[in-house]
Amino acid sequence: MIFDLKLNDKTSKKLQIEDYIKKLINEGLLQSGEKLPSTREMGLMLKVSRNTIIKVYETLCDEGFISTTKGKGTFISGKKIRSNTGQHLKWGSIINDYTKKAENLDIIKHEMRSKKGMISFDSISPDKNLFDLEEFKRDFLNILSLEGNNILNYGYAKGYKPLIDCLKKYMSDKGIDFENKDILITNGFTEGFDIVLSSITEPGDKIICENPTHNTAIKLMKLHDLNITGIAMEEDGINAFELEKELKEGRPPKAAYLIPSYHNPTGIVMSSQKRLSVLKLLNNYKVPIIEDGFNEELRYSNSTITPIAALNGRGNSVIYIGSFSKILFPGMRIGWIAADKELISYLESIKRSRNIHTSFLDQAILYEYLMVGNFDKYVKKAKKYYKEKYELAIKYANLYIPYTKLSGEGGLHIFIEVKGVNSRKVMKECYKKGVIFTPGDIFFTNNSGEDTFRLSFSRVSKEEIERGFKIIGDTIKESLRRI
Amino acid sequence: MIFDLKLNDKTSKKLQIEDYIKKLINEGLLQSGEKLPSTREMGLMLKVSRNTIIKVYETLCDEGFISTTKGKGTFISGKKIRSNTGQHLKWGSIINDYTKKAENLDIIKHEMRSKKGMISFDSISPDKNLFDLEEFKRDFLNILSLEGNNILNYGYAKGYKPLIDCLKKYMSDKGIDFENKDILITNGFTEGFDIVLSSITEPGDKIICENPTHNTAIKLMKLHDLNITGIAMEEDGINAFELEKELKEGRPPKAAYLIPSYHNPTGIVMSSQKRLSVLKLLNNYKVPIIEDGFNEELRYSNSTITPIAALNGRGNSVIYIGSFSKILFPGMRIGWIAADKELISYLESIKRSRNIHTSFLDQAILYEYLMVGNFDKYVKKAKKYYKEKYELAIKYANLYIPYTKLSGEGGLHIFIEVKGVNSRKVMKECYKKGVIFTPGDIFFTNNSGEDTFRLSFSRVSKEEIERGFKIIGDTIKESLRRI
Repeated sequence: MIFDLKLNDKTSKKLQIEDYIKKLINEGLLQSGEKLPSTREMGLMLKVSRNTIIKVYETLCDEGFISTTKGKGTFISGKKIRSNTGQHLKWGSIINDYTKKAENLDIIKHEMRSKKGMISFDSISPDKNLFDLEEFKRDFLNILSLEGNNILNYGYAKGYKPLIDCLKKYMSDKGIDFENKDILITNGFTEGFDIVLSSITEPGDKIICENPTHNTAIKLMKLHDLNITGIAMEEDGINAFELEKELKEGRPPKAAYLIPSYHNPTGIVMSSQKRLSVLKLLNNYKVPIIEDGFNEELRYSNSTITPIAALNGRGNSVIYIGSFSKILFPGMRIGWIAADKELISYLESIKRSRNIHTSFLDQAILYEYLMVGNFDKYVKKAKKYYKEKYELAIKYANLYIPYTKLSGEGGLHIFIEVKGVNSRKVMKECYKKGVIFTPGDIFFTNNSGEDTFRLSFSRVSKEEIERGFKIIGDTIKESLRRI
Repeated sequence: MIFDLKLNDKTSKKLQIEDYIKKLINEGLLQSGEKLPSTREMGLMLKVSRNTIIKVYETLCDEGFISTTKGKGTFISGKKIRSNTGQHLKWGSIINDYTKKAENLDIIKHEMRSKKGMISFDSISPDKNLFDLEEFKRDFLNILSLEGNNILNYGYAKGYKPLIDCLKKYMSDKGIDFENKDILITNGFTEGFDIVLSSITEPGDKIICENPTHNTAIKLMKLHDLNITGIAMEEDGINAFELEKELKEGRPPKAAYLIPSYHNPTGIVMSSQKRLSVLKLLNNYKVPIIEDGFNEELRYSNSTITPIAALNGRGNSVIYIGSFSKILFPGMRIGWIAADKELISYLESIKRSRNIHTSFLDQAILYEYLMVGNFDKYVKKAKKYYKEKYELAIKYANLYIPYTKLSGEGGLHIFIEVKGVNSRKVMKECYKKGVIFTPGDIFFTNNSGEDTFRLSFSRVSKEEIERGFKIIGDTIKESLRRI
């Protein structure tokens, strides 16, 4: 009877045999006291290793279905048989509101997604073809022979010390004063922002940000139950006049979240003058600034621009969150928070409570990559590569898309507005034609932006930019004709 | 005047030059309209690259301190000079209660720590000398040539698919039924537990656990504002009678957190019979079980023991959290949650909102390591290595330490109780003699356990076990004499 079992390759053999024996017991086909074949015999008949049968018997023994008497054999136990179904809970009604919200706000689960063969303007992740695998390998082997087994054992919550020092130098070169400041390594920007919000906000607190702004930041602010006050964008960054009005007349905000460089989604770079006046304004009202260093490296013109954190000098009111993972190795998830020393010490405790620390292996490889100059080389190459695409994107947007407004001064995407057109409707049509982009409404804090589009060019070929933009332009024109 | 500047090597040269020029402006030593030396001249005099000076001038320009007129040169600007101090906030009064709690509960910051040369029984991290670096390198190179740049770009929140499949097989072999179940990869056990608590509990909810229990779990339950109800441990695991009483008479708990194997800190392995009865009991009251698969692999006797999640068959009420990082490569931070499919989908959204995903590089290396059989080889070696130490620990505890109770059936530590002795006082004395261990009170949910000690032997030599245990034993004896 037992030998009737036909094993398949879908689940483990051990499990199939166990299930089958239990089924026979449940159905009364194997009765209490009945002797089972020896493990050797059973293995031979079912054509599985004897070892597997030994494990099956052990489990059935543990679970009380069978028992073994030394020298006599294995027998069906007299014990009452446990139902095989176990307890079934309705998780949908057990999970809390936070979890439901996290699921609701999870764009990946609810937005249309790119399929193979489509022209995808929806992703701002870097083009993997730019990564130099040979350099990466060499850096891995170098750091492994230098550090040995150390980097494979537990490390420190704050991060891998050589990487922290290296980042301090990197940030100092951007003008950031590290007196009484420190760095905490995080799993990318997202974790950095989540930890900062966890540390200084409470549900119901007000937070100021640009409108539109980074959709993941909106998700996190919502998950922290914050009251999001978006301030409109102008050509050179956030509208300082509106910001001042809000600070004067509104409820005091707990913090301001700003993306001064290659702002996501508009691609706008906040001017130096505006950086200074926004900093002064927020400092006057004692509002901490969370500065998102998003793609700061991807400036295609020659001049560099000083982060707000640097303009604040010895002041400690700016929390800078940096990340290489937007342009370099996102799969490794490494970012950092540069902020006041006392604050970093608090954030370090939160980080430790969340996941002990960021992978020391990854931190060490990144350190080596930075130290031997590969990062500089990479940025140079990436700038050249993306600049060409950026210029083509501008060219073909001008040629094919009847936009009302276009912005984007660098980075990996441009942002357009087409008055009177619904970008989600355009998206549906484009999707049928094999083109996908990001409808701009997901970046807005006030349910507006339905006539906006974020078009990313990092992972498409030059030829695809032309072909894709033409399809988007044509679809928009059709849509306009219909009005 | 500018050339008086003496540059040091402590901070960036760029910053020192900027600061100095600003200082001169602030002190009125450089006046509005005054011409600055050319970048070439300045570079030569200060012995830094011209490039550095160009960057200094750019920053000062950005910040409004100086301005450049083409063909004429660079001049001190007429603009009102910004104070160099920036805004100073008192972060200690801005951070919220959660953050203060995280800092307070951060043992690393508040407990005595091991110093170089000490005999350290305080760490249950694995002995790094067991890691085979050559195998690790080979696996890295193999997976990199197989996956190429893919693993360096963004991946999926749920995890690296081949690793998930591999873990499903691994868990199936332990008897876990994956019908309607799934796996989420996390940054170690800690993140897994944090995400699970985030998803199913609300502040004030009651949670049942063993008393004593894993101190990081206590920290997390406290950070989630849970009402912790600890149930005493018996020789074969949690006291089922007390558990039943609590379920019958107490407020319904939201979940039960259990460590059935090599329970931290007692080292007790819950018997199969008890596993079944505890499962049945909690199922009857519809209480979800969070099973911590802690060091399940480190069984030194031959028989394997079935996880509670496996005993639950097709049921979905057990959330199993696994981690290799307790015995293998903790620096890489990889763990997993195996649970009901619907629940995993919710947890996936939380994971994405926290840090997008766990390092794909690390996941891919671990996958390769498992696939080529290195993990099995490692566990075999580790078991042999730790078993010897374990036996010595038992031997020398019996020989030197006048304990009242000793537990520990495997794993990397033993747990002792010495009636009438305060382990923190013993610790202070031992510390002076160069020996450190973990006072057991940190594992208790009800401020007890002051007479208990967790003695870990993973990172000490055999000789140190004898020497260290003798010192601990002698110190305890002295302490007992004084009573």
